[in-house]
Formats: sequence, structure tokens, C-alpha cells
Amino acid sequence: MTPTSHPPATRLVEVRQNILKHNDILARELRERFHAAKVFVISLVSSPGSGKTMFLEKTLSMCRTHNLRVAALVGDLATDNDAMRLARSGAPVKQIVTGTACHLDAQMVNDALKDWNLQDLDLLFIENVGNLVCPASYDLGEDLRLVLFSVTEGEDKPRKYPTIFNTADLAIITKIDLAAAVEFDRAAAQSSIHAIRPNMPILELSAKTNHGMEDWLTFLKTRMTQHHPTL
Amino acid sequence: MTPTSHPPATRLVEVRQNILKHNDILARELRERFHAAKVFVISLVSSPGSGKTMFLEKTLSMCRTHNLRVAALVGDLATDNDAMRLARSGAPVKQIVTGTACHLDAQMVNDALKDWNLQDLDLLFIENVGNLVCPASYDLGEDLRLVLFSVTEGEDKPRKYPTIFNTADLAIITKIDLAAAVEFDRAAAQSSIHAIRPNMPILELSAKTNHGMEDWLTFLKTRMTQHHPTL
Repeated sequence: MTPTSHPPATRLVEVRQNILKHNDILARELRERFHAAKVFVISLVSSPGSGKTMFLEKTLSMCRTHNLRVAALVGDLATDNDAMRLARSGAPVKQIVTGTACHLDAQMVNDALKDWNLQDLDLLFIENVGNLVCPASYDLGEDLRLVLFSVTEGEDKPRKYPTIFNTADLAIITKIDLAAAVEFDRAAAQSSIHAIRPNMPILELSAKTNHGMEDWLTFLKTRMTQHHPTL
Repeated sequence: MTPTSHPPATRLVEVRQNILKHNDILARELRERFHAAKVFVISLVSSPGSGKTMFLEKTLSMCRTHNLRVAALVGDLATDNDAMRLARSGAPVKQIVTGTACHLDAQMVNDALKDWNLQDLDLLFIENVGNLVCPASYDLGEDLRLVLFSVTEGEDKPRKYPTIFNTADLAIITKIDLAAAVEFDRAAAQSSIHAIRPNMPILELSAKTNHGMEDWLTFLKTRMTQHHPTL
């Protein structure tokens, strides 16, 4: 078979580079704004169904118990299911409906923050669209990027989706309460993560049973303090 | 904050449309070639870790037991882990390493088929990159598109990723052996699928325990016969 025409590949690369460059400029401006307001910003990336939203719901509640002022933005192609779930924590939550876009970008984050006063926040969480591929390329101005995957997804995810593991700061293995049921191989998962990113910190937890959630909060507070020593 | 420049959005849409148009032309040519060779082509789309590869490995073995001549193409960003797993079935398998591309397209399928004689096949499976978003827009020339999600991913996946459910022909709920452990709500999952696509056929199965695999083979053979009545 002979293709009837050639794809405009060169042009796509060029346009893509322009978009990424534009995103990077915006993300840098966002990061400066976050820093000036002393708000620590955490983004969450995972495939659909790895337990991001339940983890975030628990995290928001725990932060509020510790008197931290938190808010969340949450991206999805359709529905505001996640925003409704997260709002149960009592924290301010805004849904970003991306339509057909497979990731959040800095412009969407910027637009969603329009009505909020960053001075009122200590922590802002940004939950990306469920996708292990495309969000890796888009800086959102965050201080800490989490990549999550559940014990049910298979231990080789990091080797198969290396870009997101290379751009994230912390790997979180979720649904650890199911480890026995799925014969989760802890050593294989860790070696897969460290093959892509040596020394990457890893936390194992279950938002359902709360196992590991206190360790996560300690990790988060340590990073916050390093970032904004005056907090 | 004022963005320092505007994204080249109009240009992106235009380039994207050209790419999709080019892909559609190629996919149509592929479909005609598959039809002429009497090979029935099935693509698989799901998020990472939903159990596509184990399901496909079992399917290839079962097809071979039933004297069907099968082969598989499998897409991943990196590694040929999946091709090695699938090759254990004894079927010819080829890995398509997509690099940073978050989906397969018709050109990649066309290129991967170069050394194979389609006349030697009854069935060809194409396992897409793990991603519920981007593969939805790319026709690969397949006759049947499967969308898979596991009981561990949450019953609302169809509402949150409507495009892929709208373009697929069959929904497969995997890892049904874990249904009790994760308190899977069957009625909620079905209503979520049918809210997006009324009357979509649904199969529940576990490639681990083989539960539902015979029903899947029956479904597949029925569709094959409808498509190529002379088989």
C-alpha cells in the first residue's frame, strides 16, 4: 500500500514546540506567583482509576485537620464527579472540564484560579486528567509532582511510561490493601521505578484503610517547610 | 497575570485536522486490504494496567486451540515487555514502540505489517498504548474496537472518558475475580456504560481465572462470521 499523501509531521513538531514553549512561559509565571503568595503547589498524575481522587479527598481532610488552608483544582474530560467528591472534604474545589484535551496546561490552571486569592492558601493540589502519557510534557507551575499507580496495574508501569516517572518527584503506590489479592511484587515495582529514576522516593499507601497516609503527610510537610522556610 | 503571547490554537486545530484526515485515508485503505485478505481485525484500548495484555495472551492461546490463525501488534511508549509476554502464546507478535506518541495511528500499523502476509491470518489483534483518551480519535482500520476497564478502576470511567466508549463496539470489564475485594458495583458500571452508549454489549471476565473467556470467544466468532460469512 502506498499512502496517498505524507503527514505534515514537520509542521506538527514545530507547532507542538511553540505550544510547549508558550506553556513553559506561562508555567514559569504561575510558579513565581505561587512562590510570592507562599502557596505550595502539588500536582497528581496517574492513569484512570488508580485512586487519585480518593487519595486527594483524604489528603484534603487531613490537611484541614492540621489547620492547613488547602484547595484543589481537578481536571477531567467530562463530568464534575471528582469535584463533587473532593468538595466533601470542605476544601474549596474547582473542576476544569477539558473537553477532548488529554491533559491540563498552564493556561487552564491560570484561568481556573481567576476568582481565588492565593494569599488565602497554604497548599494547592492540582489533579490532572487520568493519563500517564500526555500530562508529562506540561509544566503547571507546581512545586511537587506526584505520579501514582495502584498495585493492580502491574509492577512494570514505570518502564512502560518512563517520561512521567522522569518528570515526577515522588512515586505513590496506591491501593496497597489489595497487594495480597493481586500478588503485588514490591521488589519488582521498586526496581522498575529506580531503573527509570534512581533514588526516587516511594510511598506505599491505601486511602481506603489510611495505611501510609500519615507518612505521606509528614513527607508533604517536610517538603513544604524546605520550600517556604518561613511557614 | 497576562500571558506574554497567545497559543497558536487555530493553527494547531488545522494541523490536527490534516493529521486526522491523513489517518482516516490510510485507515480506510488498511480496512479494504484487511477485508480483501479476509482477516478480521480487533483493536484493544484501555488505561494502563487494566489487564489488556493478559487478556490478549489468553485470547491468542484460545484462538490457536480453536485452529484460528492469529497474530498481534502491540503498542507501547517504551519496552517490548508486552510483545515478549504475548509471544508465549506461540502467535506471531510485533511490538510497535511509539516513543513519546500516546496512541497508535494507521501509518504505524501499516509499517508494522510490512513483512507479514495477511493471507496467512484469520484474526489480527492490535493492542493500543495504555491510554483512554488519545487512541479514541485514531481509526486503525479495525473491524471491532474493544474498550476494557477493570473492576478496580471505578464504575464511572465511561462517563469520564466518553469518547472512547462512543467509538468502541464492545465494553469488557476485566479482573472480575477482584469484584468482591473492591466492592465493585455492577449496576453502576453498566448504567455508566449505557448512559454514554445505549445498548453497548458488555462482557465481564477474568483472564486470570478464565471466567467469561468462553463467552468472549463465542462473541468474537459470531462477529467474525457476520463479517466474513465465507469463513
